[in-house]
Amino acid sequence: MALDPDVEALSFLLGKWQGEGTGEYPTIQPFAFREELLFECNGKPFLSYSQKTWSLEDDSPMHSETGFLRLAGPAPRRLEIVVAHSTGLVEVSEGILEPGKIELISTNVHGTSTAKTVTAIGRSIIVTGDIFKYRLRMAAGGLPAHHHLSGELQKVESS
Amino acid sequence: MALDPDVEALSFLLGKWQGEGTGEYPTIQPFAFREELLFECNGKPFLSYSQKTWSLEDDSPMHSETGFLRLAGPAPRRLEIVVAHSTGLVEVSEGILEPGKIELISTNVHGTSTAKTVTAIGRSIIVTGDIFKYRLRMAAGGLPAHHHLSGELQKVESS
Repeated sequence: MALDPDVEALSFLLGKWQGEGTGEYPTIQPFAFREELLFECNGKPFLSYSQKTWSLEDDSPMHSETGFLRLAGPAPRRLEIVVAHSTGLVEVSEGILEPGKIELISTNVHGTSTAKTVTAIGRSIIVTGDIFKYRLRMAAGGLPAHHHLSGELQKVESS
Repeated sequence: MALDPDVEALSFLLGKWQGEGTGEYPTIQPFAFREELLFECNGKPFLSYSQKTWSLEDDSPMHSETGFLRLAGPAPRRLEIVVAHSTGLVEVSEGILEPGKIELISTNVHGTSTAKTVTAIGRSIIVTGDIFKYRLRMAAGGLPAHHHLSGELQKVESS
């Protein structure tokens, strides 16, 4: 299927990625996880995205999130993402796409009544060939932004 | 896999549903679509949800949305959902779950810089056995809430 020209610049993301990551935050014990990312395109001018993580200790499911990415302008290309988190949060983040590199900062993070309070999320992604490295910063529980997650994944299926 | 007791009350949603729906709004021509819903549970205390629609005329993809549902209290049970829309919106909606019936109203709808402005979403769902009927109201483009979507789907796969 031909890609919409508006998502051609995102095509390096397409496919399934698997790897491992680690998490930390001032309020919690450090942790590690197995992770899978899936980026797909149905021909419309956006990508769909899903992320799942599992415990390295007992393979039980941990976090998941799902959403969409779309471009919003010419180079340096503005990128917009919308994400729903299994923890009861939604996130709108915007930023810049450069070849193999994405920087995003949240413009809106909102939770359900029983979700933990997260006020900001920042994402940095670097893709070099089949290797996807990311870092995620988060401001939560009244704290300023801290490093929270990092991971490295390898492309295991092209889309 | 045993369901978490907190999502047992949502188990009537689990599985894949297929059907058709219609849309209308004061600012657009009425339209019709084929629709598929998928509700899954990975054993954690929430359901994951995805929705896709296709044109009845040429089977091309139209809208999609994806997110999570979780319960937040005893009967009458409070339900919380977080949804990312392919149109660049995120939605947090909360409401009440009764047997076979869900009523939700948004507490937060937010879009990316280039998304159309939607300020409120209301969802009514009635499930009778293998039949899933829904209505969705929306306030968009500066208008007050209007009826926007309705659909009827049949369960085609149990989860």
